Parts: sequence; C-alpha cells; structure tokens
Amino acid sequence: MTRPAVLTDAEVDAALAGLDSWSRDGDEIIRAFECASFADAVAFVVRIGFFAESANHHPDIDVRWRTVRVALTTHDAGGLTALDIDLATRITTAFAGFAKAG
Amino acid sequence: MTRPAVLTDAEVDAALAGLDSWSRDGDEIIRAFECASFADAVAFVVRIGFFAESANHHPDIDVRWRTVRVALTTHDAGGLTALDIDLATRITTAFAGFAKAG
Amino acid sequence: MTRPAVLTDAEVDAALAGLDSWSRDGDEIIRAFECASFADAVAFVVRIGFFAESANHHPDIDVRWRTVRVALTTHDAGGLTALDIDLATRITTAFAGFAKAG
Amino acid sequence: MTRPAVLTDAEVDAALAGLDSWSRDGDEIIRAFECASFADAVAFVVRIGFFAESANHHPDIDVRWRTVRVALTTHDAGGLTALDIDLATRITTAFAGFAKAG
Repeated sequence: MTRPAVLTDAEVDAALAGLDSWSRDGDEIIRAFECASFADAVAFVVRIGFFAESANHHPDIDVRWRTVRVALTTHDAGGLTALDIDLATRITTAFAGFAKAG
Repeated sequence: MTRPAVLTDAEVDAALAGLDSWSRDGDEIIRAFECASFADAVAFVVRIGFFAESANHHPDIDVRWRTVRVALTTHDAGGLTALDIDLATRITTAFAGFAKAG
Repeated sequence: MTRPAVLTDAEVDAALAGLDSWSRDGDEIIRAFECASFADAVAFVVRIGFFAESANHHPDIDVRWRTVRVALTTHDAGGLTALDIDLATRITTAFAGFAKAG
Repeated sequence: MTRPAVLTDAEVDAALAGLDSWSRDGDEIIRAFECASFADAVAFVVRIGFFAESANHHPDIDVRWRTVRVALTTHDAGGLTALDIDLATRITTAFAGFAKAG
C-alpha cells in the first residue's frame, strides 16, 4: 500500500479548520476528548481501536480518568498525511456518543 | 445487600412505558439495539459491561453482527425488580452514542 | 473476495478434532468459554471483535455473566468453511488469557 | 472511604521487589507492557479499566501501538499507597493473557 504524501502546512491548516478542537503540535495533530465518565473513556478507546485497525493506522492514545488524548502522525511518511486527517475525522464524529453532556 | 422486591405486572408495565422499545418476555425485559456498525456493537457491549459491574447486575448480552440484544431479570428475586429497570434505563440512554444514524 | 467452499462433514470432523471443546450444531460450530470473571468475559468479547473485523467474519457472541458462547457459520456459503475453522482457532488460542484458572 | 497511608520509600521498594518490571518514577510507579498485538493492547486496556472501576482508582494508561504504559499514584494521598500496589499486582497478573508470546 502506498502511503499518502505529507501534507503542506497550508493543507494541514485547512484540514484543522474542519476538525473540531484539534490542534497541531509539530508533526502531530492532537485533541483531548473529555468523556462522560471513565467507562465511556474506555469504550471510546475501543471504538478508536477499531477505526485504527481498519485503517491500519494507530494513534497514540492516553487515558487520564475520563479524558482521552489522541495524537496522530504518519511515521512512515515523516509527517502528517491524509491518513491522519481521515482518522481524526472518524474519531471526532464517533466522540459524540461518549461525550460529557453539554 | 438486600435485593429489591419483585415488581407487580402493573409496575412493570408502567416502567416499560418509559423505556423506549423494550418489551416483556416472561420474567425478562428485552431489547434489540441496532448499532451503527459491528465496532460500535462491541464498544456498546463494553459500555454495558461497566454499567453491569457497577450495579453488580449482569444482563444477558447477545451480539449478532451490529445488533446487540439485551435481556434483564433478577434471578435472585425470581422476577423483575427495580434493578432491571434501572439498568435498562442506563443502557438505553447510553445507546444513543452507538446507534445507527437515523 | 471469493468465499471458501463449504466443508464436507469429514472435513468438519477433522477440523473439530483439532479445536479444543468445540462441537457441531447443524451448520454451526459452537463453544462456551468460561472466563475468570465478567470483566474478563467483556475483554474477551473485545478480543474476539478484533479477530472478527480483521477476517470480516462475525460470529454470534452470547455473554452470560462470565461465560461467552461463540457460534460460527458462513452464511454466504450456506455452511461451514475454512473461515469458521480459522476464526475458531484464533479465538481458542486467545482464550487462554481470559480463562478461569485451572 | 479512608484512603490508605502514603507508603515509605522502604515500603515502596519492598513492594516493587514483588512486582515484575515495575519501576518508581517520583510519586508514581510505572510499567510498559508489550502486548501481542494492537488488538490485545485494546483488550488489555478494557481489562485494566474494570480493575480500575472496581477499585475506584484510575491509572494513567498510554497506548502506543501494542505497548500499554501504566502509571499509578494516589493523588488524594499525595503519594504511593497500598491502592497502587494492589492495582499494579492485579494488572500484572492479568497481563499474561495479552502478552507477546515469549
């Protein structure tokens, strides 16, 4: 499988504009998701896990009680690629089900 | 811990009126939840699992691809009790996050 | 993807001889796994879930407290195939980590 | 619930002597667990999650592909306590089921 090309800074900025609450940190994009509870955080990790296996692209996932921090980069490509944006989009959409009620 | 009393038929009917899509089957209340995907179904099982452990009350859980069927009864009490209604309520509320989009 | 051929009865019998504690029930092979605890049962469902997604082949999974019952068949093929034997083998190997100690 | 007392350095050292591959890092004890696969890592997080909820004590959990790093401390007590040692012991025992084969 060919890895996608590294995105330019402008492309990353454009993608982040469409990704709620993600930010860039060097070669990574990151977001902290505050879930409704620790149990929701664990279930969210499972949901993320299936996205990751499906894409064969595995984010760093940090659980701090009910907060799940996700960091994405494409190591093989040496930077951010469409793989990261796609996975961030899927994770963000799925998060609604685990979020702390407004 | 004292197990709650078995609910009367009228009490069960009243409780089911407030529980979306659950039905009674003898000494059980049951519902099939159609999740958005198999991955969502597995994450939903995890979420249900934490509710179950927290309540020390464990439903029967059947996974059929993306459908999760839950059956509740209170074996110790020999019928349906407030434990079942409470757990059904929690599971139903949590389901929104795993459901197939309308 | 071409689905594998339906196995003959002799082929199923030979496969079951190598699969600890599985048995045939019509067009399915089934096994009940007694886990060490309900928490282990839920974690085992997650592990099975990843095998299932990876193979794009989804068993019926029933959780009864700490017992996980798995049933496999290949609906598309109308019977048992190598897909079922392969998945049963993976699940059985993984089970060691969730089993009730001797 | 009364939180247990902060362990002395000698008590922590004694406990670590009985905990395979854990080390101390300031007020935390930490260990990285290399699982057999990413799927095993996610299932291990679920197993840890149930231990954590049961103890009402939630470790920091970092997933890096198939490695799960766990860090424990008792924030309420301002240091390491028996809660940390107990949870580390449970997690370490459970890990056998998710470990990379020798």
